[in-house]
Amino acid sequence: MSQLRWDPLKKSWVIITRSPGRGPRDYYQEREQIQLETCPFCYGQEGRGTHEVFALRPAGGPADTPGWKVRVIPNKYPILRIEGSLEPKGSGLYESMDGFGAHEIIIENPDHSRHLAQLTSAEICDVLRAWRARLLDLRRDERFRYLMIFKNHGLEAGAGIPHSHCQLIGLPITPPVIVSELGACRSYFQRHGRCLVCAVLDQEVREGVRVIRNDGRFLVFSPFAAASPFELRIVPLQHAHDFALLDDQTLEALAAALGDTLLRFLAVLHDPPYNFILHSAPPMHLRPGHPHYWGSLPQDYHWHLEVVPRLTRIAGFERGTGFYMNPTPPETASRHLREADLSLYR
Amino acid sequence: MSQLRWDPLKKSWVIITRSPGRGPRDYYQEREQIQLETCPFCYGQEGRGTHEVFALRPAGGPADTPGWKVRVIPNKYPILRIEGSLEPKGSGLYESMDGFGAHEIIIENPDHSRHLAQLTSAEICDVLRAWRARLLDLRRDERFRYLMIFKNHGLEAGAGIPHSHCQLIGLPITPPVIVSELGACRSYFQRHGRCLVCAVLDQEVREGVRVIRNDGRFLVFSPFAAASPFELRIVPLQHAHDFALLDDQTLEALAAALGDTLLRFLAVLHDPPYNFILHSAPPMHLRPGHPHYWGSLPQDYHWHLEVVPRLTRIAGFERGTGFYMNPTPPETASRHLREADLSLYR
Repeated sequence: MSQLRWDPLKKSWVIITRSPGRGPRDYYQEREQIQLETCPFCYGQEGRGTHEVFALRPAGGPADTPGWKVRVIPNKYPILRIEGSLEPKGSGLYESMDGFGAHEIIIENPDHSRHLAQLTSAEICDVLRAWRARLLDLRRDERFRYLMIFKNHGLEAGAGIPHSHCQLIGLPITPPVIVSELGACRSYFQRHGRCLVCAVLDQEVREGVRVIRNDGRFLVFSPFAAASPFELRIVPLQHAHDFALLDDQTLEALAAALGDTLLRFLAVLHDPPYNFILHSAPPMHLRPGHPHYWGSLPQDYHWHLEVVPRLTRIAGFERGTGFYMNPTPPETASRHLREADLSLYR
Repeated sequence: MSQLRWDPLKKSWVIITRSPGRGPRDYYQEREQIQLETCPFCYGQEGRGTHEVFALRPAGGPADTPGWKVRVIPNKYPILRIEGSLEPKGSGLYESMDGFGAHEIIIENPDHSRHLAQLTSAEICDVLRAWRARLLDLRRDERFRYLMIFKNHGLEAGAGIPHSHCQLIGLPITPPVIVSELGACRSYFQRHGRCLVCAVLDQEVREGVRVIRNDGRFLVFSPFAAASPFELRIVPLQHAHDFALLDDQTLEALAAALGDTLLRFLAVLHDPPYNFILHSAPPMHLRPGHPHYWGSLPQDYHWHLEVVPRLTRIAGFERGTGFYMNPTPPETASRHLREADLSLYR
């Protein structure tokens, strides 16, 4: 018997179609990768693209040269550009706006062949430091309503270039997914006087069946209404609304949790394509007078990282209904990941 | 310069990234197809599956035997089943429900190798008659809050079996996509005293740049804020809220419009994977006393068919924001489809 499940954070229904459902081997696939003649993200190619806006260079050296460990550049082919106006334009029924925004590439390491799962915790932590630095810099521009960090790994997950990287997009509109989450958190806080995500963490720790890893700082678990197979959340056990305000120690713990999670994907799902998405409070959360203030307060939003292997396809049903179908219950997915043998990968 | 566009019906923003943007040839892809040893939808296999609930048999003959032109069977592996309770269950923060519902397969023709684009208008009209018959039958069961008809064509669009078919799913919850559309239509009607979709049709006919075909009965156009390349809507020019109440003449005109649209896909996009989705009023729209009545009245909802070639991938950005990215402006897509040379295909 399949089951419909309600996600209180995303406010959406999910159909869990089978129990115990498909195992990892059902998802192995042949995958192609685009190979460029010369990778624009490798050492020695710094002059070909845009000028770097951030880099970690332990030995010093000038910008746009080799010697960096992590490097951030504006996307050469951005989805949104910093030029343009925020004014909506109307024509009859239709409204439009210039594609104002920012689009940056965070190159995670200089080695073309090492992807994020193969980096050490310390190296992953450097990537997180780059996120924090770029978020703190970009939020000074008040035209951004949201700063979104995400990663596409593998062709099916939308990665066009195989050299490991993630992306930051600054948006002139708070995205609907985030607005909906902020609303769910705010409304729960008003009814119960506490954070919705904190309450979810309590229940997940208590039930245990969907937990993959708990080191006392971060809980890694597959949500009750996981919208797709092996989907995870990495959530700080201590309440915090804003990733950009984290201290180094917390970034180190997150790097360890993320690195461990990606190794489990390697071991169980054989390097699946995946996306991850940082969910953090909008930059203007502290200023209730702002016209685009969404009512999010430090006590009612809880930042987290969403990690989604791309193992199934979105078909007509999902598109037409807004329901997702997940053929692997999160309890099954969590068990496989929890019991993974990581000895070969460490 | 890219552009953000607002869809008044879907209530969502879309980023149109380039103008004139990618052309059809950017989207040609090699595609695989699953081949079963014996196709369960072919003549002679009727005994292997579930018992038919509808069939067009011009020469008569018993159920579950060859001789049919269109045949409807319950899905052997349904997403939702007719057994089960509508009662929500709770456990702490989480709510769930049995996977109650119906899931039927509409086999569009007996020939394994002919897909919908290759059928005559009269044959497509027989498929539409089967939709209407199944909708009228299933809506007598008051447990269904929505009856969704859709098609997955090609592997990337989610089709597991290549023999041409579409699907009908009866749902115990009105889907969020439909609730949102009903709300948008209702709110527009309350403000303007007319149907939102009728107003969109007026503007599209007046502007003309996104129109692919207008035969005076149905308008085929790519919406102003098309969420993906070559996405289309097929909409009756005369207001009507409920597909199931259409007369034969209207079904014939729709069959002609749909057949012509699919031939244009063949000619321009070389048999792309695609989904289509019927958007029609929920079955209980006529009964305002019903607890799941959504406030939709015959005058404010306008049924239509959404047709979506699957040419791009959903990546981390779309997933994390709820924004879609479309690299082909609908004006460009419409021009290619409007100017297609169909002489080879008719």
